[in-house]
Amino acid sequence: MSLLFKNLRVHQVFGANTDVGKTLLTTALVRASSYVAEEVYYLKPVSTGPLEAADDEYVKRFAGPHAAKVHGKCLFRFAEPVSPHLAARLSAGVGKQNEVPTDNHFINSVANHVRNCAKSSSGLQHLYIETAGGVHSPTLSGTTQLEAYRPLFLPTILIGDSRLGGISATISSYESLALRGYIVDAILLFRDGYYRNSEYLRSYFADKKVHVADIDAPPEKHIDPETNLYLTDDYYQKIVPPSQDGEVFNLIAHLDDCHHRRLEELESMPRRTLDTIWWPFVQHSHFTAEKDVTVIDSASSDVFSTYNGRTPSSSTADSLLEHQFDGSASWWTQALGHAHPSLALAAARAAGRYGHVMFPQAIHLPALKLAERLIHTGPGRGWASRAFFSDDGSTGMEVAIKMALRAFAVRSSGGLETRTKHRELGVLGLKGSYHGDTIGAMDACEEGVYTSEWHEAKGFWFEPPIVSIRKGRTVITLPQSIAADMHAEDPSLEAESFAWAYDVEKRLDTPLAETYRSFITRSLRRLNNQFKYTIAALVLEPIVMGAGGMLFVDPLFQRILVDVVRSIPDPHPREGTSGWSGIPVIFDEVFVGFYRLGVQSTIPLLGVCPDISVHAKVLTGGLLPLSVTLASESIFRAFYSDKKVDALLHGHSYTAYPVGCEVANETLEIIDGLRSSDSWREARLRWVDSSQETVDDSQAGNNTPWSFWDREFVNILSNLDAVKEVMSLGTVLSIKIADAGSGYQSHSAQNILAGVKQAIDHGMDSQMPGGAPFGINYRTLGDVAYFMLSLNTPPGITRVVEQRILDTLSSSN
Amino acid sequence: MSLLFKNLRVHQVFGANTDVGKTLLTTALVRASSYVAEEVYYLKPVSTGPLEAADDEYVKRFAGPHAAKVHGKCLFRFAEPVSPHLAARLSAGVGKQNEVPTDNHFINSVANHVRNCAKSSSGLQHLYIETAGGVHSPTLSGTTQLEAYRPLFLPTILIGDSRLGGISATISSYESLALRGYIVDAILLFRDGYYRNSEYLRSYFADKKVHVADIDAPPEKHIDPETNLYLTDDYYQKIVPPSQDGEVFNLIAHLDDCHHRRLEELESMPRRTLDTIWWPFVQHSHFTAEKDVTVIDSASSDVFSTYNGRTPSSSTADSLLEHQFDGSASWWTQALGHAHPSLALAAARAAGRYGHVMFPQAIHLPALKLAERLIHTGPGRGWASRAFFSDDGSTGMEVAIKMALRAFAVRSSGGLETRTKHRELGVLGLKGSYHGDTIGAMDACEEGVYTSEWHEAKGFWFEPPIVSIRKGRTVITLPQSIAADMHAEDPSLEAESFAWAYDVEKRLDTPLAETYRSFITRSLRRLNNQFKYTIAALVLEPIVMGAGGMLFVDPLFQRILVDVVRSIPDPHPREGTSGWSGIPVIFDEVFVGFYRLGVQSTIPLLGVCPDISVHAKVLTGGLLPLSVTLASESIFRAFYSDKKVDALLHGHSYTAYPVGCEVANETLEIIDGLRSSDSWREARLRWVDSSQETVDDSQAGNNTPWSFWDREFVNILSNLDAVKEVMSLGTVLSIKIADAGSGYQSHSAQNILAGVKQAIDHGMDSQMPGGAPFGINYRTLGDVAYFMLSLNTPPGITRVVEQRILDTLSSSN
Repeated sequence: MSLLFKNLRVHQVFGANTDVGKTLLTTALVRASSYVAEEVYYLKPVSTGPLEAADDEYVKRFAGPHAAKVHGKCLFRFAEPVSPHLAARLSAGVGKQNEVPTDNHFINSVANHVRNCAKSSSGLQHLYIETAGGVHSPTLSGTTQLEAYRPLFLPTILIGDSRLGGISATISSYESLALRGYIVDAILLFRDGYYRNSEYLRSYFADKKVHVADIDAPPEKHIDPETNLYLTDDYYQKIVPPSQDGEVFNLIAHLDDCHHRRLEELESMPRRTLDTIWWPFVQHSHFTAEKDVTVIDSASSDVFSTYNGRTPSSSTADSLLEHQFDGSASWWTQALGHAHPSLALAAARAAGRYGHVMFPQAIHLPALKLAERLIHTGPGRGWASRAFFSDDGSTGMEVAIKMALRAFAVRSSGGLETRTKHRELGVLGLKGSYHGDTIGAMDACEEGVYTSEWHEAKGFWFEPPIVSIRKGRTVITLPQSIAADMHAEDPSLEAESFAWAYDVEKRLDTPLAETYRSFITRSLRRLNNQFKYTIAALVLEPIVMGAGGMLFVDPLFQRILVDVVRSIPDPHPREGTSGWSGIPVIFDEVFVGFYRLGVQSTIPLLGVCPDISVHAKVLTGGLLPLSVTLASESIFRAFYSDKKVDALLHGHSYTAYPVGCEVANETLEIIDGLRSSDSWREARLRWVDSSQETVDDSQAGNNTPWSFWDREFVNILSNLDAVKEVMSLGTVLSIKIADAGSGYQSHSAQNILAGVKQAIDHGMDSQMPGGAPFGINYRTLGDVAYFMLSLNTPPGITRVVEQRILDTLSSSN
Repeated sequence: MSLLFKNLRVHQVFGANTDVGKTLLTTALVRASSYVAEEVYYLKPVSTGPLEAADDEYVKRFAGPHAAKVHGKCLFRFAEPVSPHLAARLSAGVGKQNEVPTDNHFINSVANHVRNCAKSSSGLQHLYIETAGGVHSPTLSGTTQLEAYRPLFLPTILIGDSRLGGISATISSYESLALRGYIVDAILLFRDGYYRNSEYLRSYFADKKVHVADIDAPPEKHIDPETNLYLTDDYYQKIVPPSQDGEVFNLIAHLDDCHHRRLEELESMPRRTLDTIWWPFVQHSHFTAEKDVTVIDSASSDVFSTYNGRTPSSSTADSLLEHQFDGSASWWTQALGHAHPSLALAAARAAGRYGHVMFPQAIHLPALKLAERLIHTGPGRGWASRAFFSDDGSTGMEVAIKMALRAFAVRSSGGLETRTKHRELGVLGLKGSYHGDTIGAMDACEEGVYTSEWHEAKGFWFEPPIVSIRKGRTVITLPQSIAADMHAEDPSLEAESFAWAYDVEKRLDTPLAETYRSFITRSLRRLNNQFKYTIAALVLEPIVMGAGGMLFVDPLFQRILVDVVRSIPDPHPREGTSGWSGIPVIFDEVFVGFYRLGVQSTIPLLGVCPDISVHAKVLTGGLLPLSVTLASESIFRAFYSDKKVDALLHGHSYTAYPVGCEVANETLEIIDGLRSSDSWREARLRWVDSSQETVDDSQAGNNTPWSFWDREFVNILSNLDAVKEVMSLGTVLSIKIADAGSGYQSHSAQNILAGVKQAIDHGMDSQMPGGAPFGINYRTLGDVAYFMLSLNTPPGITRVVEQRILDTLSSSN
């Protein structure tokens, strides 16, 4: 995880290729640093080639008059002059080195060394970490270097290539670094009067505001070692003169300046934020101090690197960056970890091929492939025929509502030609629903704290029965209205098992199903007689209502609700117009879709298909906004006539923008790969009841409920005194705190769990790349705290997060 | 512009570095192709180094038994073995070659050669275009190769580097190609048993579905030329055997397959689109044939490459891709040309550093910088204090409306504590307004064809006076209501000059101003007495109402409207609560902002600041969706209390996503550079009246109206019989067709201008890179046709577009 210290300025040195003078130029930097810094460190994590000519020795040898300040080190040495991944394999099994180090072990070793440097002095220090070969040369495990080092997020010096072809190598290497978000503080290369690469590159990078420095090339190697030594000494004296003049010292000053400006920028960001930003959902009066602002410097995998420079630090040895596990998946968007390189590349690819292109009457491959994928093998499989694109879950829901209202208006009046524009149409839903913040989407929900001056609750909302785990048992809690119907004293019914609660088909014949059916039917009949609105659509968040408080709705209730509204007879039955009956059903799968709950879509869990569904969030892997509204053919036909004005006249400027579609395609492709991974299989197996048949690997995405959170952990959690009940499906863990005030303004969950935010050191064997201490960032909804994983969170990290939640909640007992 | 032929399969060959065996491996490809294709072409556009050893000679020499089929050519030859940009400079002035060819000349020459190849045979042909050096090596003009060749968008073979460091060079080069959207059909490199790069790369690229092929390395060069020749011959015989076995032939089959699959895909896309896509704003019954679907294969600068393979082509010599100038700027989003490489890199950079990170209570650099830029030097300068992020213009407007309603509710009830949730609030606006398609944004507009079942027009809309150019004269056309007030027989008043119409300060003292003032005041008084809604905000698209029909509203009317609503006395005047008076004013600058009209913001044109403004479209350079709502401090304070529920409880999952913010920052940076460009200065000068003071360069963004369209052209256009009136500001040209039926369903503009869509050949000197014929894609709003440029459209192209519009409209007379 990324490292930044006040007094220790660290730069990693990448090469545009092998043999471009990386060690030589780093030596010059080290030598110049020794004039101005108290201590200078040189680290070559991996060294290949003759052991007697190790790079750290070379650097020390030519470090100049202040060589005593210079400390060099190699962490992994291999004699074979080949790529590190081959060298590591060749030497595996020989001596102590009998296994190829993992990326985690490798990067933790580097990070550990950096932290030790920071501890060793309180004065000004410089550290240069020289990588091996080019930017994408494989490291020990075979991962390319700029991927392997990425968790440390160190500022970078790129050594350019001054030879023929070197312009290309330098620019391409820069672009590869940029694709991983690296800060490139400088490009450094030899001056060459013939190829003049540095001249070209200086002008090329001026636009990009990247500093380019060039240094005289070294003398040719002399065959006599003594003379060679003398010539080399002389060369270093010339380019790093005691007068402290020249390009190398200028560069040192520039690097120091970059370091200080970065610190100043981080330091100033909270104040500037408080002065200009209007946050969503935040009461600014509650957050007026600089410490209230979380400055996110970078992110990778499931971790934010945040600036904590304002907390008084006991020593300069502490990193100014702190690490937080993104426990809310950044508002439920993350699924593959932050800054996934394949998604960055996908975004770049579509940006480079299309930019954005107009969509009406047009098509491009990313949009077409995404539409086909969603309809043919995705959540629209078997029922949807059309994909309509928009920008976010809220706009996707507005589109869905427009579709449903029109479809109802057409059907209820006997056809498109005869429909009248009907304003008194309303929707049916559940209390606790949330479909986004635009005013139309809000009007499909009850009035609440979120609603604006223009809000009008256009519909009726049932109070839903809820599934949860209490003291290890799966229970269904009925709302008072239904419990009264059953003459039940205790509104909580125990489910046969966790899996049984989600086996809707089996439960359709139970007395509870009958109770639900008659309750809903009776309520609708009453509504029909006295309601301001004509009910025109059923709008559901299937399985879980997220924003409403992570309410896991009894799937049986939602299933029967769909069944009942579909049994409403068609007022104008006509030949050939079938496809749906009753009123259109909308599934808002924005939060629950794409394996957030362990299943691709909630359809198999409920056992019914919607007429319209809305998809966003995970759809684009947590990188950028995009939404798709899927519709059945009969919904589409409600807009199909010979008149333009009957069309769905809705669109946004960037509708179906290629970058969004390409990133979505890449995301779904990556998820397809994960589905058959070992960690998914193992997680699923832990949730199989012994009574169930064996889970078949091919069954990922079927209707068996499971979670990435450990079943035993969930049970233990549900037995804690501090916990009222818990629930988990897929990546979601929801914890309701016991004996707390409830509601949107409650802070009980926040208070009791505050401890997990604290950064804890998990040592060298930490599963977090770089091994630094980390805290857990989580969000609460009143008395509910929830935690979310990505679809590829390493199980080792999940276990650590689980243990920390347990520790915190146990200690509060 | 991009080229694709049925029978001619073209591949460009890029190198991961110089000296990786490009010519050698291309020779192998050529030789293998000669077994299977009727004709094989080899093109080396630029050749540097000894003329007697030219690459085309080499290829021909080793082309094997079917060498007669092989045709080689170099277009530009230089003896100096340095980068082409240096070679071109060194030889400039020598002999015929006395100028360095421009990128256009260079790429047109290449395209011309490709087209000639396509013409020369109707059988199966292969063409290989070998580039020089690495992917980013500079071409003659100094532009890097993958930029220079990008307009041709040819499928690519990347020759990988098999040497030490070559893994990195190959992956980086691939990423640079991907950043420009290139299709990489294969990576080809030498097999090397020691470094084993091909092994690593094959596994690395398997994930990315890129075909990697390796070929035995050639024998070492023998000092005896005769022996060397013999050995080389033998080598080619071995790797390209007459038996047509082995890796090279497999690769040829793969490349043929890629070509055919691309053709099949393009061919199938219209059908698949008609089967799955639900387009915005399109009546699908009007477009049911495959020819109705515009298949966009790629885009660059202002041009789409579209597939026209379904129009019966007279010969196989015609490219299957046609080119269309994007005359509607893809729904008004484009400003810097499609697929701008700096924007692609910016997107990649932020994706690589952050992905997306949660925004409430947090901050990251791209969002902070964008907020500061917009507030301190952008459209918020001088009045805005807060930036609120959302996803598109429509959501940005919903946020603006929520802000304004609350601010009014607080003010009208005397404070945040005493405000009541008030649903009967309405807005004031102009007829023809459009603020996006979400239901709340629609409710701020009149009922119309766009509105859905839930629409309720919550407000009152004035009919506005309109500015236009008729027969060379600038006129202001008053609506009937105001004309009656003036007792004017002719509702059209002639303006003193074009510049005068936009000199609002000067016009404030005119009788017309007095008429506007009294008309508005009287209307509002009438409204107060009898209106269902309490007017709570003024919502304007300043200067131009785009979707309403490119209505250029008289700025004096909008200015006076703002002045009048601001003079409404505060019902609850209190100390220290000032900042605004009357009702809040919202400027919807989504369409008009960021120099779309030649000015950064419309504020200087109107001479008043809003309380809230909304920005999108050009904000992100036409790449991806993002919106910012700016607000003054007093608006912000209307949500500031000690209660969470008083906060602006609105947000979207990807609020302030780093990729969007970074692309916006890059866009604004690039535009800042354009402002002082020669082409902007020259365009502005053409619109300066002799009576005006000289336009100062530093005045870009001031209140002088100007256009990228030539003033004389606009005048001539306005004098054509077919034209009723025209109007132009900045990048926008609007043409109202004479004597046509009007309204949203009118097709008159479409019919009369249909001719400009036709592809016309502008020859070798075409300003369009690649010199291919191009048509002009434009959109109409009923009887209005409009054309839009980017902020960096080369003036030469603008002149061609102007001429074609004139030609088409003149011939319709």
